[in-house]
Amino acid sequence: MRDVVIIGTGQTGVGEHWTRSLRHLAHDAIMPAMRDAGVDAVGALYVGNMLSGQLVEQEHLGALIADFVGLRGIEAMKIEAACASGAAALRTGFMAVASGLHDLVLVCGVEKMTDTSGSDTTTALATAADQEYEIAEGVSFVALNALLMRRYMHEYKLAKDAFAPFTINAHKNAANNANAMFRSPVSAAAYAGAGMIADPINLLDSSPVCDGAACVVLAPADLYKGRAQARIVASSVATDSLALHDRRDPLMLDAVATSSHLAYAQARLTPDDIDLFELHDAFSIMAVLSLEAAGFAPCGGGVRLGQEGAIAIDGRIPISTMGGLKARGHPVGATGVYQVVEVVQQLMGRCGANQVRDARVGMAQNIGGSGATAITHILAGM
Amino acid sequence: MRDVVIIGTGQTGVGEHWTRSLRHLAHDAIMPAMRDAGVDAVGALYVGNMLSGQLVEQEHLGALIADFVGLRGIEAMKIEAACASGAAALRTGFMAVASGLHDLVLVCGVEKMTDTSGSDTTTALATAADQEYEIAEGVSFVALNALLMRRYMHEYKLAKDAFAPFTINAHKNAANNANAMFRSPVSAAAYAGAGMIADPINLLDSSPVCDGAACVVLAPADLYKGRAQARIVASSVATDSLALHDRRDPLMLDAVATSSHLAYAQARLTPDDIDLFELHDAFSIMAVLSLEAAGFAPCGGGVRLGQEGAIAIDGRIPISTMGGLKARGHPVGATGVYQVVEVVQQLMGRCGANQVRDARVGMAQNIGGSGATAITHILAGM
Repeated sequence: MRDVVIIGTGQTGVGEHWTRSLRHLAHDAIMPAMRDAGVDAVGALYVGNMLSGQLVEQEHLGALIADFVGLRGIEAMKIEAACASGAAALRTGFMAVASGLHDLVLVCGVEKMTDTSGSDTTTALATAADQEYEIAEGVSFVALNALLMRRYMHEYKLAKDAFAPFTINAHKNAANNANAMFRSPVSAAAYAGAGMIADPINLLDSSPVCDGAACVVLAPADLYKGRAQARIVASSVATDSLALHDRRDPLMLDAVATSSHLAYAQARLTPDDIDLFELHDAFSIMAVLSLEAAGFAPCGGGVRLGQEGAIAIDGRIPISTMGGLKARGHPVGATGVYQVVEVVQQLMGRCGANQVRDARVGMAQNIGGSGATAITHILAGM
Repeated sequence: MRDVVIIGTGQTGVGEHWTRSLRHLAHDAIMPAMRDAGVDAVGALYVGNMLSGQLVEQEHLGALIADFVGLRGIEAMKIEAACASGAAALRTGFMAVASGLHDLVLVCGVEKMTDTSGSDTTTALATAADQEYEIAEGVSFVALNALLMRRYMHEYKLAKDAFAPFTINAHKNAANNANAMFRSPVSAAAYAGAGMIADPINLLDSSPVCDGAACVVLAPADLYKGRAQARIVASSVATDSLALHDRRDPLMLDAVATSSHLAYAQARLTPDDIDLFELHDAFSIMAVLSLEAAGFAPCGGGVRLGQEGAIAIDGRIPISTMGGLKARGHPVGATGVYQVVEVVQQLMGRCGANQVRDARVGMAQNIGGSGATAITHILAGM
């Protein structure tokens, strides 16, 4: 099995792109990534996307995007694992290069959620949960996360403001990211006064509906050593039940724990070695549960990492360093690739005011549904 | 890179399964495949599916199905390449085993098209074509294939009955397949009198809307030599433009040609070495164009293979040996896996009245859209 490196990255700004269709967004991430990598041809394209069939009434994105960016003919397909689709596409690209089947591979995550023609967004997002045993009962995807947050607050006797530091941190970091959707800082007072969506989840606990695309170019380490920007030292996927009521313990994300520990074992690292962690903060509660399941805090201790400032750029375990899902934005199927692009930028020391000092090892973790899929990649700088 | 073998297969009957939901269908193919392989645990599950988000309002099939069949925790994801999703999942599973990342892998193609809750089927299937430049103009997916068939008839001065042998052959073979949807023979008179759907495509040129699931278990050849049922000697993916009007020549399926020739090169074989060809006869015209692009007939000569009987079980290049998409049925995202299961059955000499004599090498080819994705696998018997 060959070592795999990233030799180029690209991304669009995250937001409401009313003048760019899905294929244009993919193009706008792929072309800069190929320029960055200095390549004009690749062997394959793996597209991470969850919602195009439902929202844009377009499937078959592999061939569509390959053709649109001038790569007609190459191997191409779409990979879906709900909100973890971007990382699932990266996992597939990793296999294609590691196996020796392809030397150069594009992984593009893309999602178009505004200005759409198909289902409404709430219905479409609910397909990440168990249709027959959760959604059919009338619960929405946000409401499922609200159940988790309520249970956490009950179990650990917490008030809602315990979660505020996660939102404040994400927005603070996004202010310095030109590609982020929300670049305004948020105060504790604003968090406390934000409109309720599904109690106790309010507007400022939630990542936004938005459009975006991100891309990385993968290559084998031995052939592209001089051009490598980061090395993928771990890649792992784990799953759990879709339905919350089927979980062993709703507050322990088993898939996150398994995927994280598989990744640590592959990389021969421990949580102490991770310099930054791009986690899946689709909702504040997901950030907290991820920190616990991934081994950065004991059960019930995740919120304290926020309260103590450990999640800040200069903290013990910086998270959402470019704004995270909360403030950079969460174009669902693209998110997993955005996370990896940002880790690469950190490892290359290109993050300006948000630079994590001496960042040598970064972890990106993309979650599908309310924790049913967890995909972890650990990257090391060159 | 490791050699990959198939050590078990499973399939449900194809038809209208009003009492089985999507997850049940997958279960009904996976459990017999695991029993056939003699394994009770695997490292990963790759699900081929196109339409679940739109028709069943359920995405995230990887984790859902892994959990439902008792494999909670394993790596799992869904792969989509329109009607070629089944073969795309097989391609992904092939990479996972070839790379050494997993030893045992399940590939399950599944589609639930009847008794659904979401979009109508015609709208959903149209997402295989170019939404912005074809479908938005009002054309349906069947109509796109009708344009190809009309052009072919015009170019080669053919009457419609030239296509009848493909339907007659498929139905004749399906009569002996207990898993086929249509087990009644069809006469030339019935073909001539069949109701028109999109002129010149009539009901008997078209594969049916249906439900089904099929599964194969993959393993590395070196570790599972004694249990191998067939070896994957070639795996290739090629693409073309989604939109027909963007093609170099609408009657030459470039993706099929590229994918076929890549596969021949990998296997060090020529079309003469192929003992049977499970091709993508979603419509009669697709069977004809596939035979030509894959090198079994010159341009305009595909129909003659039908007229001369070359496509029969005892002909020069048997196709649709268990009924094909036309008569076994075409549960879209499952089809590519059904094709491979049938090739394995042929190579093992288990096809009874439909057995191709001395079948040693079989080719399965799954097409997405009207030819924008073509995925070819060549299998050799043990």
